[in-house]
Amino acid sequence: MNNPTAAMLVIGDEILSGRTRDANMHYLAGELTKHGIDLKEVRVISDDATAIIASTRALASHYDHVFTSGGIGPTHDDITADCIAAAFDTPISIRDDARALLQAHYDRANVELNDARLRMARIPDGASLIDNPISTAPGFTLCNVHVMAGVPAIFQAMVASLLPQLTGGAPLLSQTVRAMIGEGVIAEPLGQLAAAFPNLSFGSYPFQQDGVFGTNIVIRGVDASHLDAAAKDLSTLVKDLTT
Amino acid sequence: MNNPTAAMLVIGDEILSGRTRDANMHYLAGELTKHGIDLKEVRVISDDATAIIASTRALASHYDHVFTSGGIGPTHDDITADCIAAAFDTPISIRDDARALLQAHYDRANVELNDARLRMARIPDGASLIDNPISTAPGFTLCNVHVMAGVPAIFQAMVASLLPQLTGGAPLLSQTVRAMIGEGVIAEPLGQLAAAFPNLSFGSYPFQQDGVFGTNIVIRGVDASHLDAAAKDLSTLVKDLTT
Repeated sequence: MNNPTAAMLVIGDEILSGRTRDANMHYLAGELTKHGIDLKEVRVISDDATAIIASTRALASHYDHVFTSGGIGPTHDDITADCIAAAFDTPISIRDDARALLQAHYDRANVELNDARLRMARIPDGASLIDNPISTAPGFTLCNVHVMAGVPAIFQAMVASLLPQLTGGAPLLSQTVRAMIGEGVIAEPLGQLAAAFPNLSFGSYPFQQDGVFGTNIVIRGVDASHLDAAAKDLSTLVKDLTT
Repeated sequence: MNNPTAAMLVIGDEILSGRTRDANMHYLAGELTKHGIDLKEVRVISDDATAIIASTRALASHYDHVFTSGGIGPTHDDITADCIAAAFDTPISIRDDARALLQAHYDRANVELNDARLRMARIPDGASLIDNPISTAPGFTLCNVHVMAGVPAIFQAMVASLLPQLTGGAPLLSQTVRAMIGEGVIAEPLGQLAAAFPNLSFGSYPFQQDGVFGTNIVIRGVDASHLDAAAKDLSTLVKDLTT
């Protein structure tokens, strides 16, 4: 059986302008791989309603899960929740369960739950909440879209709340063989090795170190014994090519 | 006149599996902003021909420029050049100009230009080459798609070769005001300020420092005097809210 598939939608002008370097994609990619969910595509788009709605619809119809980050805070440019609701033609309003969470949180801090903060209780009808142990304002899951915050610490906490509830498949295993030879030397025998193990994928990643070219070859698959056999053959191959 | 628009296509299983953290998106975003080209969307996809062709067609028809990174090396999983050619129904073969570059490069190093390395001379008909001062194997521009390497040092060198040839618009300017108050405090007056400067964009980026919530507010636009006026008003606003 194939693993569930996923896409990620990163929402934020600050990433596209180069002001902020996104950290959530790399984090989510690693967590999904461990959980046996195959991340197939990531899109980064701006805080623009048309773009958010169109991308959500496109990704939600193609993949089993969509994970979003960004745009669920209290300010005027936080429009993600409303756009996700619109993508599914679902009504959205301040929901009692989310309001109660925020009320208790701000009461404890002796801070007023003003209109801006109340925006964070806007949750589409029928969505389930995603726990936010850091700053309380919840994410939510609507259909197959999981809506989370953009601040990395909060995003990571929400992923930790959410992932155990999702059915994963077989975790993708990998083995890396490091070769101090350029890709051009190993490309042809590597192609033959890849053909001999059709249920594994072989990626080749060149690097430069102290002016010398090297290649990391990563073998990926879900079958540990095939992976071991391929890594052994590959190590022999690299040894033959470097001696 | 509006700035030219752009999208980026990052091609690589290693990003989606979490093995590698992409560095090229952040670099390109910053360079395009300086050059006056508006990056509107980034897609990260796997080394899969169907995905590369479909994404290339979708992005090339929506944006003025598409920049790709990854998948133009000598190994069996380097399929980007062929997929870009297929996306435009253009023939591709080993081209004499690219072969001559590689031949001279490998002759200098006393290394054989084998079949795998020759793959890097596969260039679609009619494409212009993008100079690679680091490892010679060129990128190329076909129609409005600029195809570059994934290794960050080479990607950056190719961007430096390419960008001066592209017509840019007015660089996007920005000013940041740092406020040691949460977003919930400033959200409402910030929304009013944003409404008063419709040709500027106001982004609000919460952070935590030593357990205290703060907010960086970034004002962006192409008109320096409007930007100065808005930043002055915003600083006054922040001062009023924190004293």
